[in-house]
Amino acid sequence: MDFTIQRRLVLLLFMIGSLSITQAQKVDSIAMGHMALFFSLSDSARPQYQVFYKGKEAIRNAGLGFQLEDDPAFYKDFEVTGIEKTSFDSIWHPVWGQESAIRDHYRQMTVHLRELKSPSRLLDVIFRVFPDGVAFRYYFPKQPGLRYFVVRRELTEFHMTGDDMAFWIPGDYDTNEYLYTQSRLSQVDNKKMVDSSTAIAVRVAPDRYAVQTPLMLKTDQGLYINIHEASLVNYPAMQLHVDRKDFVLSSRLVPDAVGNKAYLQAPEKTPWRTIIISDQATDILASRMILNLNEPNVIKNTSWIHPMKFVGVWWAMQTGKKTWSFSDYPDSTDGKGQLIPNYRHGANTKNVEKYIDFAAKYGIDGVLVEGWNQGWEDWFGHWKENVFDFVTPYPDFDIKEITDYANSKGVKMIMHNETSGSATNYERQMDTAFQLMRRFGYKAVKTGYVGKIIPRGEHHDGQWMVNHYARVARMAAKYHIMVDAHEPVRPTGQQRTYPNWLASEAARGNEYNAFSKGNPPAHETILPFTRLMGGPMDYTPGIFKIKYYSSDSTKQVHTTLAKQLALYITIYSPLQMAADLPENYEAHLDAFQFIRDVPVDWSATRVLQAEPGQYITIARKDKHSSDWYLGAITNENARQTSINLSFLDPDKTYQAAIYEDGKAADWKMNPESYRIRHINVNQHSLLQLKMAKGGGVAIRFKQLD
Amino acid sequence: MDFTIQRRLVLLLFMIGSLSITQAQKVDSIAMGHMALFFSLSDSARPQYQVFYKGKEAIRNAGLGFQLEDDPAFYKDFEVTGIEKTSFDSIWHPVWGQESAIRDHYRQMTVHLRELKSPSRLLDVIFRVFPDGVAFRYYFPKQPGLRYFVVRRELTEFHMTGDDMAFWIPGDYDTNEYLYTQSRLSQVDNKKMVDSSTAIAVRVAPDRYAVQTPLMLKTDQGLYINIHEASLVNYPAMQLHVDRKDFVLSSRLVPDAVGNKAYLQAPEKTPWRTIIISDQATDILASRMILNLNEPNVIKNTSWIHPMKFVGVWWAMQTGKKTWSFSDYPDSTDGKGQLIPNYRHGANTKNVEKYIDFAAKYGIDGVLVEGWNQGWEDWFGHWKENVFDFVTPYPDFDIKEITDYANSKGVKMIMHNETSGSATNYERQMDTAFQLMRRFGYKAVKTGYVGKIIPRGEHHDGQWMVNHYARVARMAAKYHIMVDAHEPVRPTGQQRTYPNWLASEAARGNEYNAFSKGNPPAHETILPFTRLMGGPMDYTPGIFKIKYYSSDSTKQVHTTLAKQLALYITIYSPLQMAADLPENYEAHLDAFQFIRDVPVDWSATRVLQAEPGQYITIARKDKHSSDWYLGAITNENARQTSINLSFLDPDKTYQAAIYEDGKAADWKMNPESYRIRHINVNQHSLLQLKMAKGGGVAIRFKQLD
Repeated sequence: MDFTIQRRLVLLLFMIGSLSITQAQKVDSIAMGHMALFFSLSDSARPQYQVFYKGKEAIRNAGLGFQLEDDPAFYKDFEVTGIEKTSFDSIWHPVWGQESAIRDHYRQMTVHLRELKSPSRLLDVIFRVFPDGVAFRYYFPKQPGLRYFVVRRELTEFHMTGDDMAFWIPGDYDTNEYLYTQSRLSQVDNKKMVDSSTAIAVRVAPDRYAVQTPLMLKTDQGLYINIHEASLVNYPAMQLHVDRKDFVLSSRLVPDAVGNKAYLQAPEKTPWRTIIISDQATDILASRMILNLNEPNVIKNTSWIHPMKFVGVWWAMQTGKKTWSFSDYPDSTDGKGQLIPNYRHGANTKNVEKYIDFAAKYGIDGVLVEGWNQGWEDWFGHWKENVFDFVTPYPDFDIKEITDYANSKGVKMIMHNETSGSATNYERQMDTAFQLMRRFGYKAVKTGYVGKIIPRGEHHDGQWMVNHYARVARMAAKYHIMVDAHEPVRPTGQQRTYPNWLASEAARGNEYNAFSKGNPPAHETILPFTRLMGGPMDYTPGIFKIKYYSSDSTKQVHTTLAKQLALYITIYSPLQMAADLPENYEAHLDAFQFIRDVPVDWSATRVLQAEPGQYITIARKDKHSSDWYLGAITNENARQTSINLSFLDPDKTYQAAIYEDGKAADWKMNPESYRIRHINVNQHSLLQLKMAKGGGVAIRFKQLD
Repeated sequence: MDFTIQRRLVLLLFMIGSLSITQAQKVDSIAMGHMALFFSLSDSARPQYQVFYKGKEAIRNAGLGFQLEDDPAFYKDFEVTGIEKTSFDSIWHPVWGQESAIRDHYRQMTVHLRELKSPSRLLDVIFRVFPDGVAFRYYFPKQPGLRYFVVRRELTEFHMTGDDMAFWIPGDYDTNEYLYTQSRLSQVDNKKMVDSSTAIAVRVAPDRYAVQTPLMLKTDQGLYINIHEASLVNYPAMQLHVDRKDFVLSSRLVPDAVGNKAYLQAPEKTPWRTIIISDQATDILASRMILNLNEPNVIKNTSWIHPMKFVGVWWAMQTGKKTWSFSDYPDSTDGKGQLIPNYRHGANTKNVEKYIDFAAKYGIDGVLVEGWNQGWEDWFGHWKENVFDFVTPYPDFDIKEITDYANSKGVKMIMHNETSGSATNYERQMDTAFQLMRRFGYKAVKTGYVGKIIPRGEHHDGQWMVNHYARVARMAAKYHIMVDAHEPVRPTGQQRTYPNWLASEAARGNEYNAFSKGNPPAHETILPFTRLMGGPMDYTPGIFKIKYYSSDSTKQVHTTLAKQLALYITIYSPLQMAADLPENYEAHLDAFQFIRDVPVDWSATRVLQAEPGQYITIARKDKHSSDWYLGAITNENARQTSINLSFLDPDKTYQAAIYEDGKAADWKMNPESYRIRHINVNQHSLLQLKMAKGGGVAIRFKQLD
């Protein structure tokens, strides 16, 4: 059937007058399902591609190629020396994830190109067409004319068909922690956002018309198009420059310290450039194309990799009740040369043991300790190389006692390694740091890169740091440590290759509700369409004390309490924090029951409803039981919807525990109002859900025997 | 007596009309011996200093200070808040060196400066006056107004009194391997030299009027002035921009990847800026001021540190007979995935054992192996990060067998770790690399940094790499490994602090005679006045086959054979290579006897005659016997001289073994002609020495019972 569609499309192609491909040019194509991709050479013999969805043009003819350091023009004057086509269909089983089985089904077309003139360099473009989108990567074959080379620019284009609506953050070399802007492509301009985002410490966005990927687009014809990359290995992150008149998005690679983009050695391949397309927004969220384009798991023994929930000494710091540092006096010591304690230090033995008690009592798997090691008095903002040593605890943090205590309670410890951006310092000590974790039984590390990167001149999202994050994942795997990377490059599906790299931050998390103007209610309805397309995010949901009355009484979380619960479903992560303070959970143990129950690993996922910026409803089935869960969230608008429960197993009855907004709930005026009701349902039930402004619903469907 | 001189000088100061210091300005001074230093504030309240030698101005009033990143003007508008003076006199004993005891004798004046305007930042200048020169460093006290800061420029000046003759190499950020130019300051222009030095792979010298230190100057009044720095720690190397009209030399610090010079945190100090002055050239070479200005030894147990001579699988590679690489086919392997051997690989087990045999037979302490680890097929010039792994030998290098064999013969092994400039890669593996050396009993490592530095954008002589070399020395000390660093920053006396860092290259070594137009005969008469002022150099002397008839028959060493022997005395190093092939030594065993005999550690040194660019005669006493040795070298001119042997111990007779140029010897036409004569001498003898063009004399004075 796919071949029928393909033939139909080729016919269509020659019928559409607006196409600029002439007979003389080499044209070839592949198709699958509703998707078709055409390759051709332009008049200047530049490789180009075009994408159709359901017979309509989704991506216009768009150029490919590079500028290299020597002999720079590597994007035109090519000839096609051959085209190979293959197909692939297989099912694989991730170590953890949103599904227990993932189908990887595509047709592939490899176009072999050779420069017409000497030195006749070779370049392959490998195209894949999936049911849910298209992807392509460049391959530099082994050849005499191109061995070591430097990429000055990648010239890949994504030529949109019109002035699409876009959900975007600035194309910043060092951070993804921006608020999303929803605008037409013609209106993209990141300057104001960059200038005003003063809560983000390091912002480097020299091109005001550049946006980050994953970029979510919606055409006026109702197509949803997501552009990103997969398998970002030994290469800088791709951002997109927006041509606001012609709607051409051009690849902009994050530069290194001297302005180069990538140092490569043939044979080598670039990451995949991915375009996921559907006329259903839900299909975008259901796509596993990016995962499929990553290399399979390289870790043989994965028995030590366990998705988990955790609490931690963290929100108390974010809200100013506790400190990361032991002392408020940098550079000062008492008469005996000891730091002068501030008595508000969070990671002290007693306080950590309180969290261990809490985790043990309520069945939360782990406890994260931040601020446990020396250096926090003066850790940030000085571009200082040797801040932390990663092995020396503060005097009030008894690492041995805490380990023994956690072990006695069956609680897993998570260690924090903040680098303040000094990757060189971390790399020198990484081995020692992981040895310490292993010795004291820590199961996971939360890494951090707050600050300007060292090596100085490098960026968070450049090739050197991209390689660094992977080195961390590999070294951690050696010591059976799971990784949760904060402030790294945004993910591109590498959790398939390194399943111990469970989650990343790389976006604006819940924490911004603590120390800045916060995340507006639409934020969490955009994240799954953008940042989460590449991989799990440690968003740190679960704040119950929505208005936490810090010194600034306007500060609050921009959701209802019920929506905080729903986020455990709508924002997938195998590492989920229950971020609030124990006392705030103990004040709402009925609602906390959902956090206790909700799994972090799933056998199936159904995206039921979704519209970026508006709402998301997702159902998931627990990997280790017959229970289903559902999360529904809305933006700043209240919302009423009915959910067809046909996803439930047939012939089974479920008790639905519904955690929903109270009748008068409202994220701003009355956010902590919720109610919990229990009803029995089955596959044929239709569930009416009401969400307050900034609200949500979380449901556990417990299968009854 | 010193105080008398000081008083006399202060008097003199007010008598000299040309001085621009007015009564209103703060003036203070310190003096010792012939040396006097005056501090004052200029009309703009800029700190400045002036130096007198024997009552005559040697350095004119010259400015001090900095430009910092924020609030940049940190060089004027100061007031003096206090001046402290101290003096110091002590004798210390180096672990090894040119003397067994060194006197550190100076007067110190600390000038406390404070900005007149807010934020009233503090800056100290610490001046020291020694019998042989003056030095000063900046100290940034702990203060609220200056904590973390970035040095954009150091504005230190050295204001010469006239158009001095200078012996200089270009101020290059990445290499010191240039030929010396002898010119007036007004004629300094490095461009031609930089452009033509194509044998040096990485040359970055953006300022054509910048020169490297140590800079050797000679005034028309006959003063010898040497400008350098001491204790280069956590700071970039200083080069000097030459004002060719006013003869002001201004500090130019080597920048980092983003153009900054140094990232500092108060309290912090800069390296010492050193000015050694005498009217005798021999005093320059005898000065130990730079060593005295370095921190004392930090290695407690030094029993494992042994100066030594060594042979190695190296000159055969330099002259094209052998290769570092195992294969001539980069990226290619045979059917079994193995490298395709070229059968000219130098570091193969059999060949290495031949060198071990040779070393054992003739009492040479060590054997250096280069090209033993995988990666050499394609190691250089690609700015590639991960070239070598430092632990994987080539298949024909049996590390275990070689170790056992060397142990059985009592020979010490030296391992080569070439980084090809990728310091990040080396730092990640350093621990493992040193563990390997320790496991297989290697006593020393020769490090190498051929190529552009990684972190990309950093330079060999910048702050980051300066810190790197020290990290290597410290890590090596942890594993009891001695270090011989090739292509590092030029030394500044840190061998006092890290006595396991025995030698460095950091200049144009004997190797250039193998692969470029070579080193002219004057070269070795300049090196001691320049590069060697900072520390020992692994020059690799001892080439006996002067015309080695490679494919290029013009290639030869630019000395006589006798001069090669003399270099073991005139170029001090605790690590001295006997660089030639075993067969070339076995063809001249009588001459080789001198290399076998000559020590590498001394109890006393007498610089008897010296003139930069012309000649050097040095006598040294063995640290472990009563024998004296003497080396005398000349430039391209033949030379006849008589040497007073009053340095010999009184009332003792010595048998002098004199290794001298043959009667018809000539570095170009007849370089391998030498003769050896034996005569008995004592303290009262006068020795007539004749040197051929490009020749030299080496003498062992064996004390007779």
